[in-house]
Amino acid sequence: MNTPSSALDAELSALLGEYWRTDDVSRRAYGEDNSKRYALPAGVALPGTRQQVIALVRACRAHRVPLVARGAGTSSTGAVIPYQGGVVVSFERMNRILEVNPHDRYAIVEPGVLNGDLQRALAPHRLFWPPDPASADISTVGGNLACNAGGPHAVKYGATRDNVLGLSAVTGSGEPITCGSLTSKDATGYDLTHLLIGSEGTLALIVQATLKLLPLPAQHGSLRALYTDVSSAAAAVARIMAQPQTPSMLEFMDRACIRLAREVGGADIPDAGALLMIETDGDAATLPYALETIAGAANGEGLIALDDAPDDASREKLWAARRSLSPALRTIASGKINEDVVVPVSRIPELVAGVEAMAAEYALPIVAFGHAGNGNLHVNILFDPDDEAQSLRAQTALPRLFALTLSLGGTLSGEHGIGVAKREFMRDAFEPATLATMRAVKAALDPDGILNPGKVLP
Amino acid sequence: MNTPSSALDAELSALLGEYWRTDDVSRRAYGEDNSKRYALPAGVALPGTRQQVIALVRACRAHRVPLVARGAGTSSTGAVIPYQGGVVVSFERMNRILEVNPHDRYAIVEPGVLNGDLQRALAPHRLFWPPDPASADISTVGGNLACNAGGPHAVKYGATRDNVLGLSAVTGSGEPITCGSLTSKDATGYDLTHLLIGSEGTLALIVQATLKLLPLPAQHGSLRALYTDVSSAAAAVARIMAQPQTPSMLEFMDRACIRLAREVGGADIPDAGALLMIETDGDAATLPYALETIAGAANGEGLIALDDAPDDASREKLWAARRSLSPALRTIASGKINEDVVVPVSRIPELVAGVEAMAAEYALPIVAFGHAGNGNLHVNILFDPDDEAQSLRAQTALPRLFALTLSLGGTLSGEHGIGVAKREFMRDAFEPATLATMRAVKAALDPDGILNPGKVLP
Ligand SMILES: Cc1cc2nc3c(=O)[nH]c(=O)nc-3n(C[C@H](O)[C@H](O)[C@H](O)COP(=O)(O)OP(=O)(O)OC[C@H]3O[C@@H](n4cnc5c(N)ncnc54)[C@H](O)[C@@H]3O)c2cc1C
Ligand SMILES: Cc1cc2nc3c(=O)[nH]c(=O)nc-3n(C[C@H](O)[C@H](O)[C@H](O)COP(=O)(O)OP(=O)(O)OC[C@H]3O[C@@H](n4cnc5c(N)ncnc54)[C@H](O)[C@@H]3O)c2cc1C
Repeated sequence: MNTPSSALDAELSALLGEYWRTDDVSRRAYGEDNSKRYALPAGVALPGTRQQVIALVRACRAHRVPLVARGAGTSSTGAVIPYQGGVVVSFERMNRILEVNPHDRYAIVEPGVLNGDLQRALAPHRLFWPPDPASADISTVGGNLACNAGGPHAVKYGATRDNVLGLSAVTGSGEPITCGSLTSKDATGYDLTHLLIGSEGTLALIVQATLKLLPLPAQHGSLRALYTDVSSAAAAVARIMAQPQTPSMLEFMDRACIRLAREVGGADIPDAGALLMIETDGDAATLPYALETIAGAANGEGLIALDDAPDDASREKLWAARRSLSPALRTIASGKINEDVVVPVSRIPELVAGVEAMAAEYALPIVAFGHAGNGNLHVNILFDPDDEAQSLRAQTALPRLFALTLSLGGTLSGEHGIGVAKREFMRDAFEPATLATMRAVKAALDPDGILNPGKVLP
Repeated sequence: MNTPSSALDAELSALLGEYWRTDDVSRRAYGEDNSKRYALPAGVALPGTRQQVIALVRACRAHRVPLVARGAGTSSTGAVIPYQGGVVVSFERMNRILEVNPHDRYAIVEPGVLNGDLQRALAPHRLFWPPDPASADISTVGGNLACNAGGPHAVKYGATRDNVLGLSAVTGSGEPITCGSLTSKDATGYDLTHLLIGSEGTLALIVQATLKLLPLPAQHGSLRALYTDVSSAAAAVARIMAQPQTPSMLEFMDRACIRLAREVGGADIPDAGALLMIETDGDAATLPYALETIAGAANGEGLIALDDAPDDASREKLWAARRSLSPALRTIASGKINEDVVVPVSRIPELVAGVEAMAAEYALPIVAFGHAGNGNLHVNILFDPDDEAQSLRAQTALPRLFALTLSLGGTLSGEHGIGVAKREFMRDAFEPATLATMRAVKAALDPDGILNPGKVLP
């Protein structure tokens, strides 16, 4: 349905006034996301309070109209597209930081606050919220929660799911629930908090979150390690992760990425089979030792060169290679399928070898880089979207990538989630009984299936 | 029902042979737990494989007979007591460590393995599994998972829920589910793993777990800080937790505990309003700095004395006070209600003040100690169980303790769980809609309500 019934229209107008919008411009603006997918909703609701969200869900439920929660629309999986029409619920007005409690190290926020704005509000307290997607400045905490977003610091500090104490939400039955606590330990009842995290708006609309905060480290140091081949780099990752000085980032680039960064991005970096960019954090007293220990672990068979950068200026220089990568990718191909598969660290060499074989077979550049400490690699299949044959080959390569990942004991997504893009592959990732149980949980929280229908579950 | 129907009896005999037991000795042995509660099951099943667990659940479901999962029976909340009869499912035969993978830092285990046995198997790899209940040597991983168990190290490494990658389980429908992954990052589908953790055997029977392992620290150092009053100690806890050198333990004792440890336990410790026992871990290069930094944070208004113990021998001496406490408690009163409430760190002074007021009002010794870094205090109400008036006063004090905890923004349990002991207080901890949602989740996974009926939910 992409026009509201006049009864629902009247109800939502009465509830939200100017914040219920059915004009074409609004509907179009809220019908697209970062994945370039698109569908037109019947209208856009911009609630300002939890009470309004409750009333909104109840009204839509009574009329059996779908609701699609929306943060900033930066999802890359189509998770936020209203394919079945209905109401897009944008949380942009519910963007207050309600409390920052430095003593108890939590913040209570509304879902619409941008991750970057939250970090800036926390910095004067010398605290931070660990989830650090590259989209931090343009994505909302609500979207981060709903997708279980993560970034490079997850290797030390965990992703979103590891850094939330409690949530308030409105289920698909229109019931307000409050789960979790203000405390870092909690064994009271069922853990609905973690269930909602990563559920992509299909179980409940999150209206408030209590986030776990950590002390901001004072200093950072970096290392760059080049290896002859991916196996040597993966062995180094395992050694680094097996000792107690956990790095704060542990990023990987394969041979194709290194070449791109140098030849297209202009980075000052020699040719190699694999590269690790390592960051460690601490303070003046601990940083040298941490760098030395991690350098020791990085050193081993296949190491070509190890450069360290204890200060900020030399750090910037080392990370230039990593930063030059995204623009370089854009230069060589305008079409890009960017997946974020995960495998156990020891299987990274097999994943990269498989990806290289696929690149040869499909005659397409495929590059892999990303969060090695978690085995979470961004595999980018590059193609020219105007070339039909190339586009088709890219689309054919994708299921092969997922099959390879699953055969290595891995999983479909480490941070982007499932949305519509990976929904059908859920059948390969989970046994039918597990999917049936997920469906039963969905029915328990959203009995009429009005919340973000058609997402996550096949 | 505490005798099985002859049909079920025959089915389970055929399925399990000698591992299906209905003799009186077995039924009595599996009818009690550490909380001294007791009820007789119809029989005891000791499955050896996941397939047997599936068949067992399906048989019981067909006959509408309850199943109560059992690890080692060390629960203190009555969670494991078969109040409605039925079948106790003991996982003692499913106690294998199936894989220890040091490269990818996970272990795959069956639920019946003892936590302590697992730690001993991990030590040669210089790895450990963080959950460290005091009962580690006598409780199972399955029980730890089902209760979200924790211990003093949770302040740095988290409790059970923070250290599990995936689970295999059998739901109340008799369906085998496999959730989570082998990897430390995962945004694929609904997080059933965390939902099952802490669900006390009411949603599914856990038959296998993939546990997250961490590198074992090489060395430990300790500090003991005495304060004039609880407020000063709580302020110190907040300061310690606000800097990046997170201690590996941060334990608290109130004035009554200190007195007990000295006067009854014979510990060498001066009188004070509050005590913090602090442990930090690391290696020769980092430990002195960590101790110095934490000592700096511990130092502040109200500090009476700060003793450090960089080596193992002096450490033992410092921790003697903490260790003498449990025997001392047993000496002064044979009846003890030991609760494990949690409050935000900044509210610890109000909790302890409230407990002191209750002790005076009810004329009973009430002492508080425990995991200060998480705000998780063990409040022990001491009484003579042969004295009816005292027992009654102790029972009356309990609801007051929970009401106080909740009024301070806290929660009922940090590690022991709910079981039957705290079930009715769930109504005070959660709004009706939240409880209704928990019930809907229960119905989704266990539609006939055969798994551990009468536990957790009121
Ligand atoms: C340049 C760029 C870089 C990126 N880098 C990363 C990265 O490093 N790591 C990473 O994890 N992701 C990354 N992403 C993807 C994306 O930014 C994240 O998934 C982010 O968490 C989405 O937030 P959002 O506010 O844009 O949510 P949206 O895209 O608006 O919504 C995403 C999902 O969350 C749901 N949702 C939103 N708000 C709520 C709510 N209040 N209640 C319930 N459900 C809700 C929606 O229904 C939808 O299913 C990147 C995206 C871009 C464009
Ligand atoms: C001396 C002592 C000290 C203790 N100290 C601590 C402490 O420091 N921290 C702490 O957290 N706890 C502590 N406890 C409590 C207890 O040891 C923990 O709750 C422990 O996790 C229970 O494990 P168990 O194997 O004994 O489980 P049980 O007592 O047998 O069962 C506990 C619950 O788990 C369920 N269960 C067991 N196995 C499974 C399975 N495979 N699948 C599904 N459900 C299952 C049961 O149905 C029951 O609900 C202590 C207990 C004692 C006696």
